[in-house]
Amino acid sequence: MLAPREEEFFRALAALLPKDGLLRDVESLRPYECDGLSALRSLPWCVALPETAAAVEAILRLCHEYGVAVVPRGAGTGLSGGARPSHAALLLGLARLREMAEPDLRSRSIRVGPGVRNLAVSEKVRRHGLYYAPDPSSQIACSIGGNVAENSGGVHCLKYGLTTHNVLAVELCDSSGERLPIGSLAPDTPGFNLLSLVIGSEGLLGVVTSCTLRLLPLPPQTLVLLAAFPSLRQAADSVGAIIAAGILPAGLEMMDQLAIQAAEDFVHVGYPREAAAILLCELDGEEDELQEQLQQVAEILRQQGATELRVARDEATRMTLWKGRKAAFPAVGRIGPDYYCMDGSIPRQRLAEVLEQINVLARDYGLRVANVFHAGDGNLHPLILYDANQEGEQERAEALGARILELCVAVGGTVTGEHGVGVEKLDGMCVQFSSAELAQLHRIKAAFDPAGLLNPGKAVPSLHHCAELGAMHVHGGQLPFPELERF
Amino acid sequence: MLAPREEEFFRALAALLPKDGLLRDVESLRPYECDGLSALRSLPWCVALPETAAAVEAILRLCHEYGVAVVPRGAGTGLSGGARPSHAALLLGLARLREMAEPDLRSRSIRVGPGVRNLAVSEKVRRHGLYYAPDPSSQIACSIGGNVAENSGGVHCLKYGLTTHNVLAVELCDSSGERLPIGSLAPDTPGFNLLSLVIGSEGLLGVVTSCTLRLLPLPPQTLVLLAAFPSLRQAADSVGAIIAAGILPAGLEMMDQLAIQAAEDFVHVGYPREAAAILLCELDGEEDELQEQLQQVAEILRQQGATELRVARDEATRMTLWKGRKAAFPAVGRIGPDYYCMDGSIPRQRLAEVLEQINVLARDYGLRVANVFHAGDGNLHPLILYDANQEGEQERAEALGARILELCVAVGGTVTGEHGVGVEKLDGMCVQFSSAELAQLHRIKAAFDPAGLLNPGKAVPSLHHCAELGAMHVHGGQLPFPELERF
Repeated sequence: MLAPREEEFFRALAALLPKDGLLRDVESLRPYECDGLSALRSLPWCVALPETAAAVEAILRLCHEYGVAVVPRGAGTGLSGGARPSHAALLLGLARLREMAEPDLRSRSIRVGPGVRNLAVSEKVRRHGLYYAPDPSSQIACSIGGNVAENSGGVHCLKYGLTTHNVLAVELCDSSGERLPIGSLAPDTPGFNLLSLVIGSEGLLGVVTSCTLRLLPLPPQTLVLLAAFPSLRQAADSVGAIIAAGILPAGLEMMDQLAIQAAEDFVHVGYPREAAAILLCELDGEEDELQEQLQQVAEILRQQGATELRVARDEATRMTLWKGRKAAFPAVGRIGPDYYCMDGSIPRQRLAEVLEQINVLARDYGLRVANVFHAGDGNLHPLILYDANQEGEQERAEALGARILELCVAVGGTVTGEHGVGVEKLDGMCVQFSSAELAQLHRIKAAFDPAGLLNPGKAVPSLHHCAELGAMHVHGGQLPFPELERF
Repeated sequence: MLAPREEEFFRALAALLPKDGLLRDVESLRPYECDGLSALRSLPWCVALPETAAAVEAILRLCHEYGVAVVPRGAGTGLSGGARPSHAALLLGLARLREMAEPDLRSRSIRVGPGVRNLAVSEKVRRHGLYYAPDPSSQIACSIGGNVAENSGGVHCLKYGLTTHNVLAVELCDSSGERLPIGSLAPDTPGFNLLSLVIGSEGLLGVVTSCTLRLLPLPPQTLVLLAAFPSLRQAADSVGAIIAAGILPAGLEMMDQLAIQAAEDFVHVGYPREAAAILLCELDGEEDELQEQLQQVAEILRQQGATELRVARDEATRMTLWKGRKAAFPAVGRIGPDYYCMDGSIPRQRLAEVLEQINVLARDYGLRVANVFHAGDGNLHPLILYDANQEGEQERAEALGARILELCVAVGGTVTGEHGVGVEKLDGMCVQFSSAELAQLHRIKAAFDPAGLLNPGKAVPSLHHCAELGAMHVHGGQLPFPELERF
């Protein structure tokens, strides 16, 4: 932008914001130079921190008028760089839109601003015996707006769904500053399903200024079951067997031996160090039902070869069992100088073969991989251990990561489970989708944001990018995993 | 189209179809002159009946090349005229794409052609103890492709969801004949959620040539409870009270006195004729759980003022209780010369006041309204009785219908519950949505079908249409129901 026009823009922008709501000097911009993908840093052009939906709309109108690109940002906890700033874009921080209405108990819903922290919603409605189900591990810090942008999941999304299953309506401000109310408290909406389209769109289609969330009754009883297995395959097959028996656990998590030992060395919760894998299975419901489910699950786990079963009923024991799982990422961080956290998803029934194949790949690349993940959802989080100080190891880790994602796609899965595409998975998108599919995504983007001002360069790679990468998408069948049955 | 070019088009089209797959003479076109909205009839320009996905793609490429509009049609049971033909468009009948793969038991899914009948899916997988949940009342005849186009529901969608919750993936052929695979067996897909966008898009975005459906285990036990109430309000409030208690019935249906008496006079199933309203509540699950739920529900119904409770456990008695509900539409057809079946949805907690308001409106218009509907979903089906032979009655019925839909929108609901927009609800869409929202829907349409060849004139009204109608959408607050609290 030419200097005089730039000053004019900033004068108009400042008039829309509180005194401390416009940041331009390097010192103030520094905290915004990255999101949770901290490997990639760059200073934003400027940061705007509006406090109301009306101010967000006015800022988007202004940016539209001046042709200024906008990067929306929630709490900045995203792991794929969806809120990565650009020196050519205004960073629109939504953390100050923290208004929460009183919950509507008749419809079991609550209207909140996008800056409200995920956990704050459940805290607010707990006295009514309610909670908000999606629980990403960052829930103490991450914001509802960011959850909507990423379609966040969490340990309990197996039973209670992703963000998209727990949001009833949003107000979306499009790139021209026009406000669109989307969704309702009614079960279905005529016209196209814009609500599902917007949720998970990573800030490319508009900026959400208000969300109406579905609330659920707190489960009356909860218990956690730990099962240890002598082989990965037995643990993986147990996951399918539980679901196939018609049981939907509240959470069903898996850790392999490397992850178990790392967690145990770190937090000492008494995990069986010698097991090849453990499953953590959370069940919830009424006491009778719970007891019956527990017996069924225990029977299945024994049949599948579990060598040890532990049940935790009281809160303290449950928390202890979960503590190791929750500490697993930092625990793995302690055993190697560096790790690369992958996020892919696969059809649940392919779990055993994919885990075995990951181990084969890891050996081929001479690297260790720890697995800690949402097994029930088929959402993998392989942690690739490497040492950035060893010549070529980082490149090898990245190459292995790319191979693992290709493997996910080859069995009918996807290159991201719950962390989003952002900038991290742009290459993976070239593997996942054909040119025709990517072109369709671009046309939808253009239908909301014809000038391409919202979060440019994120989530959907350009066809040019994919052509340069030379990636062949999987539907053509070119991926070299001949030993696997195709999707 | 100019005559020589037209003949060229038909020669190319005929080459893509089996001998009996291209209909052009009036006699053969006649069966296709309407869908379930039989009040509106017109002959299609021609009918194409391909037998394979490849033929569908080739036909769409051909139509794209020649600029020929296409109206897709499933089994023709839709009630809103979504498959209404036009003399300026090719009618693309998909009923012959009836291929069904073997079910994949590991992922509990099955891949079927769009022409497969809804009920045929459950029939095919029953021997594996599985079924396909969405069950529109037309399920014996309607096709999966039509269900996807309309996002069909049914009696059991309260617990098991609409079509959108039970479809894992589709193959979509866009208006240029390009095939897009959408969705997967993995829990989430990167990029925008095209699957939810396509489901319920009423043939405007593409033609589905293959669907991968989620299968569910058959419920071990089922029972049906009938409760009679001395007032509409008590029945309506019971619906909210059951859900608020954390119980999700498999079905929760309501009939008012006019509907009860009409059904009873027709099929004699022993419904309580003097009740102001009845609820039919279906519960399913394991025996223990079912018994406990039954006690809870019965207790709630008594507290809400139910004067009679009946429980049907064996299949014959259950079928008898359902028979009256299922015969209610034709039964109402017997008591007045004509009826107009409305379809709107509202937030469940507004049920009592909306039903009372409908009765006030009915009195104002001097017409009778029978109510038979999916109460648990807040999906209303008021049946407006009128006599088309009485001067002005039909117009009065239509005006009352429009008022009822405005009422649905005013309380935060929508102008269609499960029957779709088609051509019937185009005016309602002008009430439901602002110009900015409609413009957004048109931009999405253009992102899939820039030339506007797919099902033109359906589902999303032009801005011009709404301007001519002079409708004011509800978000401005202009709808004249001052006595109701706004959404």
